[in-house]
Amino acid sequence: MTGPELADAPLPVGGIRLATVAAGVRYPGRPDLVLLEAAPGSRCAAVFTRNAFCAAPVHLARERLAAAAPRYLLINTGNANAGTGAAGLADARACTAAVAEAAGVRDAEVLPFSTGVIGEALPVAPITAAVPRLLEGLAADGWADAGRGIMTTDTRPKLCSAQLDIGGRTITVTGMAKGAGMLRPDMATMLAFLATDAAVAQPLLDELLREAVERSFHRISVDGDTSTNDACVLLATGAAGNEELTANDSEAARLLAEAVGDVCVQLARGLVRDGEGASKFVTVSVEGGRDGAECLAVAFTIAHSPLVKTALFASDPNWGRLLAAIGRAGIADLDVEAVSVRLNDVLIAEGGCRAASYSEEAGAAAMAATDIRIAVDLGRGEASETVWTSDFSYDYVRINAEYRT
Amino acid sequence: MTGPELADAPLPVGGIRLATVAAGVRYPGRPDLVLLEAAPGSRCAAVFTRNAFCAAPVHLARERLAAAAPRYLLINTGNANAGTGAAGLADARACTAAVAEAAGVRDAEVLPFSTGVIGEALPVAPITAAVPRLLEGLAADGWADAGRGIMTTDTRPKLCSAQLDIGGRTITVTGMAKGAGMLRPDMATMLAFLATDAAVAQPLLDELLREAVERSFHRISVDGDTSTNDACVLLATGAAGNEELTANDSEAARLLAEAVGDVCVQLARGLVRDGEGASKFVTVSVEGGRDGAECLAVAFTIAHSPLVKTALFASDPNWGRLLAAIGRAGIADLDVEAVSVRLNDVLIAEGGCRAASYSEEAGAAAMAATDIRIAVDLGRGEASETVWTSDFSYDYVRINAEYRT
Repeated sequence: MTGPELADAPLPVGGIRLATVAAGVRYPGRPDLVLLEAAPGSRCAAVFTRNAFCAAPVHLARERLAAAAPRYLLINTGNANAGTGAAGLADARACTAAVAEAAGVRDAEVLPFSTGVIGEALPVAPITAAVPRLLEGLAADGWADAGRGIMTTDTRPKLCSAQLDIGGRTITVTGMAKGAGMLRPDMATMLAFLATDAAVAQPLLDELLREAVERSFHRISVDGDTSTNDACVLLATGAAGNEELTANDSEAARLLAEAVGDVCVQLARGLVRDGEGASKFVTVSVEGGRDGAECLAVAFTIAHSPLVKTALFASDPNWGRLLAAIGRAGIADLDVEAVSVRLNDVLIAEGGCRAASYSEEAGAAAMAATDIRIAVDLGRGEASETVWTSDFSYDYVRINAEYRT
Repeated sequence: MTGPELADAPLPVGGIRLATVAAGVRYPGRPDLVLLEAAPGSRCAAVFTRNAFCAAPVHLARERLAAAAPRYLLINTGNANAGTGAAGLADARACTAAVAEAAGVRDAEVLPFSTGVIGEALPVAPITAAVPRLLEGLAADGWADAGRGIMTTDTRPKLCSAQLDIGGRTITVTGMAKGAGMLRPDMATMLAFLATDAAVAQPLLDELLREAVERSFHRISVDGDTSTNDACVLLATGAAGNEELTANDSEAARLLAEAVGDVCVQLARGLVRDGEGASKFVTVSVEGGRDGAECLAVAFTIAHSPLVKTALFASDPNWGRLLAAIGRAGIADLDVEAVSVRLNDVLIAEGGCRAASYSEEAGAAAMAATDIRIAVDLGRGEASETVWTSDFSYDYVRINAEYRT
């Protein structure tokens, strides 16, 4: 894949400043509270989890986004403020009110985001006490620290920038994401925050984000099948001074959409690569389907199969488990004779059984790599889809069994 | 639960004889080949996997069942004869032909069943060579050995009997099952073979089996989401001499349906309890739903969540993961305020958050048990459903990573 790559120090975005502190939300001395400031006049698009048990900050952020454009995003780790009922909502209001008062904006202009343990009361005092330090620390080059500040079980920050030219002006798109348990969509909270200095009309901004999420974060997570706190935000400050983009069919809008999408794909792939206990990065591409939906069904059935995942962990080319997963993906009239499966460049199955040319040695060599591509051709149409996943290891069980205990 | 229990030595069934040998299909010295003989005139009902990549023996057994009532079931472990194409079909024919010839029946009267590694050629010679020993060894009390002979990664046989009285005659129902990887429906082949000495008309027999599977094996496995080789067979020999049962609304048919269902439930629960690496036996019951479908959706979302399963392994009462699973089960208009969740007798969540009466100590005490009941009340109707599952342990990863290597 060409395009932007993950970076330790992404590019600043005009109109955006960030600060990160160790507030002691759950553990002392660990960066766990981030404030992102957007210049006045910035626009904001956001997508949230569809989980019925969504967290207090999600309720509040949704409500406020409908009322006003946010000036501040307040993001804490260590506590998800989910399953906390009315008290959780009051806690989220209290934290954001502290920011609003200190920064001189309305409460509705501050959005809360939380990730961490579910069902425990949010410690409000350490968060409000840290607000002055946050406001003092705001800086345009605060992305790198913020990328670390939003981590929970992540082992490394996920940060990425892209630049493009619109009407002779350089436009920057920078984003950060957290989330490490992406082996299954229900593994952990995913939070992503992107910003651009382009001037973008609200309807186009909403559309840009929706499309970018669809081809990135929704390709590592089943649509609608999300945690209590998942959120992805895209801010547009307009600081680049371009003429406001309004139509999604313009060349400039297309370029910006590509940049936002590329940054999201890199962040999403970064989440998978940092998956809890992951030892493999697996691209599952399904082509030859009648439509995208059936390609996705097959790709996700493979990507979610614990049997396939444990075989990947063992570097075992157990292609029988792949065939079994394809066969139960719900395509009622699938002609198994037309299906072929490759591991990297090795044809492993065709005509409903093991390929004549296949050898265990070639399969084992393909599986030994850290990056593996499983390519399925359904042989019944022109549609294709790609999803990304990781393997299932001892460490996965350890991390998720020990977390919280 | 009252009713029949798993037994080491189940009751013989008039008209049924079994034999088990170590044929060396994959490992030497391990019982791996079972022959089950049904008396002439027996009737047979069967349900098979809906996986598009179904195995050669499934193809052949389905085809033959439509043509004739079987006299013999030939069951091998060590090799699934799946993903083996035309050669696999020829191999299944060769093995069953050896039985047919030696026993003096038509080929169509012998059904093959295979479980084990997918995608490797079935070793025909050791199977056909063992046929004389199988026929010599047939015995009415062969169930206990057969229960062991069909095991793969199972650690113990699953056998169960029930008896009932129909018109003054004692009727016996005995069954055996194998399958250990039931954490997810795609984990492993499930095979179950049941027999009764009742005389039952074919349409009623088909219905009895369908209903019994629905309330047992389909409650540990999502409907339609099965491996390449899954099968469940019910034979009725008529040896008890009762007047043939024909109508499903008779008291006798109802009693027999209950007995067959109870045996299937015990076998299904036995599969879960013997789940690969399982350290907990978990009953997930969902009540207060508008219909059974939404209760099942919630129950299976909980039962399949790796996050819930790892928390169970850790004996961690992480009820937040339970709420998150309920919330993403796809009930669009779920009122989270009406939902309550119990761990055994401990109310852990209600009103959308942790119950006021809940303490971590009480939750931890409930989770420390080996048998755990997760009871969800959706608070929106009268429907209820129950499924059974197990936890997700290090051993699960080890068993599935090492199997085949």
